[in-house]
Amino acid sequence: MTDGTASRSPARRPGGRSALVRGRILAATAQLVARDGIAGFRYEEVAEVAGVHRTSVYRNWPDREELVAEALLQYAEDLASIADTGDLRRDLVDYLTALANGLDTPFGQALGLAIQPTRESSTVRQTVARILEQRGAAIRQRVNVAVDRGDLPPFDSTFLGEMLSGPVHLIVNRGVRPFTRTDAERIVDVVLAGIRATVPSR
Amino acid sequence: MTDGTASRSPARRPGGRSALVRGRILAATAQLVARDGIAGFRYEEVAEVAGVHRTSVYRNWPDREELVAEALLQYAEDLASIADTGDLRRDLVDYLTALANGLDTPFGQALGLAIQPTRESSTVRQTVARILEQRGAAIRQRVNVAVDRGDLPPFDSTFLGEMLSGPVHLIVNRGVRPFTRTDAERIVDVVLAGIRATVPSR
Repeated sequence: MTDGTASRSPARRPGGRSALVRGRILAATAQLVARDGIAGFRYEEVAEVAGVHRTSVYRNWPDREELVAEALLQYAEDLASIADTGDLRRDLVDYLTALANGLDTPFGQALGLAIQPTRESSTVRQTVARILEQRGAAIRQRVNVAVDRGDLPPFDSTFLGEMLSGPVHLIVNRGVRPFTRTDAERIVDVVLAGIRATVPSR
Repeated sequence: MTDGTASRSPARRPGGRSALVRGRILAATAQLVARDGIAGFRYEEVAEVAGVHRTSVYRNWPDREELVAEALLQYAEDLASIADTGDLRRDLVDYLTALANGLDTPFGQALGLAIQPTRESSTVRQTVARILEQRGAAIRQRVNVAVDRGDLPPFDSTFLGEMLSGPVHLIVNRGVRPFTRTDAERIVDVVLAGIRATVPSR
């Protein structure tokens, strides 16, 4: 038995493959990876925290690394794009604020652990690389639009993304103080002003 | 038996408390923490990697957290100060380059794991906080000297440290490309120019 809903389903999806059960399992996985690390968390405890039978976890994700990778991807989608309101400063401040909120969740903390380059399996590392690449692409795209409009001189948009998100990661991971919107504004203001002052306009 | 040198020592320091043995044990600890996490590494393997008897590890560090904390502190001293050559840009570029090199060692990777705020014990967390505080103090001191000399407008030096070292942590931890001196120069140039452009001089 997995759960009541799934076992009564006419579509015969064994192991509770409903979106609800899957979501609960992935959230529990992120929570336990954040606490115990990718090598340390236990399937039994995932099932317990998610409130499902452990066969639901084993059947849907026989591969431990696939489970971690999906849990990370679940969280990544929220930060895969940046709004374009026409106001570059505002869009970047909104993005950094959302990034800080995302990093401060079990998903974000699990991602932080998985970033450590020497430790993880290729499945997890590829997933992390894909998530970070999506975020990098989102920043690059927004910055390139700004450059095309003449809001910003032409600049290596990958590097600009690192300058903006690096301090956010550091402040959130360190956990000494909360990251505020004022922090996001200061970061964006200093970086944009620094680029305008050091890079010649086209 | 612990090791030949220590057991023949007239000072009777049991357990190989010589600087050499201690150094080897701490280096091995950092290496294994970087690979297996703080909860995951094994004393037996520390002894094996260090080339000492395992009683040397147990006797000197009966407390696992103390062992991790000392291993982290071993690495911290190199980055606890910044030179003052009178050239702020150069001193900061040198520091960020040294920081990147330090983060890319087993010690730095172990520190990166220990930074994750939700996971570790109070001994390890206090040590991490102390290391980061020392580094923050080093940057603050050098920046405050620059402000006093009029090289930089008055600015929150803690925040400046986060703006400078955040991208270094991100690039090194991500591990997609090597961190170069050119990266350090671009970071310092953008941040210093951004501060000069946004903060009024005294």
